Amino acid sequence: MTRRKKIYEGKAKILYEGPEPGTLIQYFKDDATAFNAQKKAVLEGKGVINNRISEYIMTRLNAIGVQNHFIRRLNLREQLIKEVEIVPLEVVVRNIAAGSIATRLGLTEGQPLPRSIIEFYYKDDKLGDPMVSEEHITAFNWAATQEIDDMMAMALRVNDYLSGLFGGVGITLVDFKIEFGRVYEGDFSRIILADEISPDSCRLWDSTTNEKLDKDRFRRDLGNVIESYTEVARRLGIMKEMPTVIQGGVH
Amino acid sequence: MTRRKKIYEGKAKILYEGPEPGTLIQYFKDDATAFNAQKKAVLEGKGVINNRISEYIMTRLNAIGVQNHFIRRLNLREQLIKEVEIVPLEVVVRNIAAGSIATRLGLTEGQPLPRSIIEFYYKDDKLGDPMVSEEHITAFNWAATQEIDDMMAMALRVNDYLSGLFGGVGITLVDFKIEFGRVYEGDFSRIILADEISPDSCRLWDSTTNEKLDKDRFRRDLGNVIESYTEVARRLGIMKEMPTVIQGGVH
Repeated sequence: MTRRKKIYEGKAKILYEGPEPGTLIQYFKDDATAFNAQKKAVLEGKGVINNRISEYIMTRLNAIGVQNHFIRRLNLREQLIKEVEIVPLEVVVRNIAAGSIATRLGLTEGQPLPRSIIEFYYKDDKLGDPMVSEEHITAFNWAATQEIDDMMAMALRVNDYLSGLFGGVGITLVDFKIEFGRVYEGDFSRIILADEISPDSCRLWDSTTNEKLDKDRFRRDLGNVIESYTEVARRLGIMKEMPTVIQGGVH
Repeated sequence: MTRRKKIYEGKAKILYEGPEPGTLIQYFKDDATAFNAQKKAVLEGKGVINNRISEYIMTRLNAIGVQNHFIRRLNLREQLIKEVEIVPLEVVVRNIAAGSIATRLGLTEGQPLPRSIIEFYYKDDKLGDPMVSEEHITAFNWAATQEIDDMMAMALRVNDYLSGLFGGVGITLVDFKIEFGRVYEGDFSRIILADEISPDSCRLWDSTTNEKLDKDRFRRDLGNVIESYTEVARRLGIMKEMPTVIQGGVH
């Protein structure tokens, strides 16, 4: 068996060359990092859960016309995706103040924002992913104005859909981070949703108790990280078998 | 003589009630602060120079149709201005990387930006004037979309004009900060330029030597702050008498 080619290794995922041109295999690791990788841990089973949750959400988003890179899940930790030219931006949509916006603008965590707010962060670990505005994005040509408009429109559709999806199972979508990529068709490119959507990239609070069911459990040492991620999957109606799989020690 | 009413005292200026409704008196102090007032000093004569430079620039901007709050200079340290409802934003226009953008985006100080970049900062000393985007500005209703467009258009006109004005006397306009305010006419309001434009609010480099002629001399302990401000005034053809005035100890 020939070893497949690694294209890119990030903090939580690895990308391998795919079986056909224009495809990649996205592998979900158990590695967890926070605060620009100053805090690290291995959370056994996280990759398996996130692979499943991201599959579930990307499939549903595709069905409502939010085009994305997901093709199909291959196994417990891997999914086949379209190869994209990643836009070097993290796009954050916030409904309720939490995390950096609370500190930055002096808001109380849990305070509903006057309306959903979209933020852009330049993907650069060395710089700590600084927040940027459309002015920086267009001046440095990280994305074109039309692409920013497309990303913002898609981000708001994702927000609406996920707010409904999670709201229906008793989970409040506080905020989330998504990434986009370009796919080329001849001389033209269009923007599609890429990366993942999982409890690693969303803030999800139980709608009744406000208990956190996301990566803040890791960031803030609240414990029960995997249990909370599993609870999200369980409420979405997927991965009923997860506890066994995790206990089975899938790596 | 009745003591006039102080309306507002900032770090470098005081606003007093004006002689007629809708006017204020803007008094320029010698106080200098940097790094959100962690660093402080009194620079004798600074207020006199900035009053004159700001008068000169605002008068010229008014002449090209960039409406602003300046009415007339009253004396060495004071000018009569229109009362405005200040927009709680600092609008920064950058032509060359320097200061916070260099650190934030990993640029080398002195590196020309791909194009002029406009940034917005929310005026809040407690929060350290955080950078914000149009999304935050409109969500929190700090300014309306049309007002943002007006401020950006005016900021670019100011940048063009000042780049020419300073360029003609051997000074490179690296960046500058301006503020805007609303004036009301019946039910309507419009945006005009307010505050000041001076070496306190601009980065100005000698075009030949790149020597700094602005507040960075204070921020970075480079010395000769007043001499540099005076040099800017001298090159602009104003305040030939300044050294004497300063030596005279005007307070």
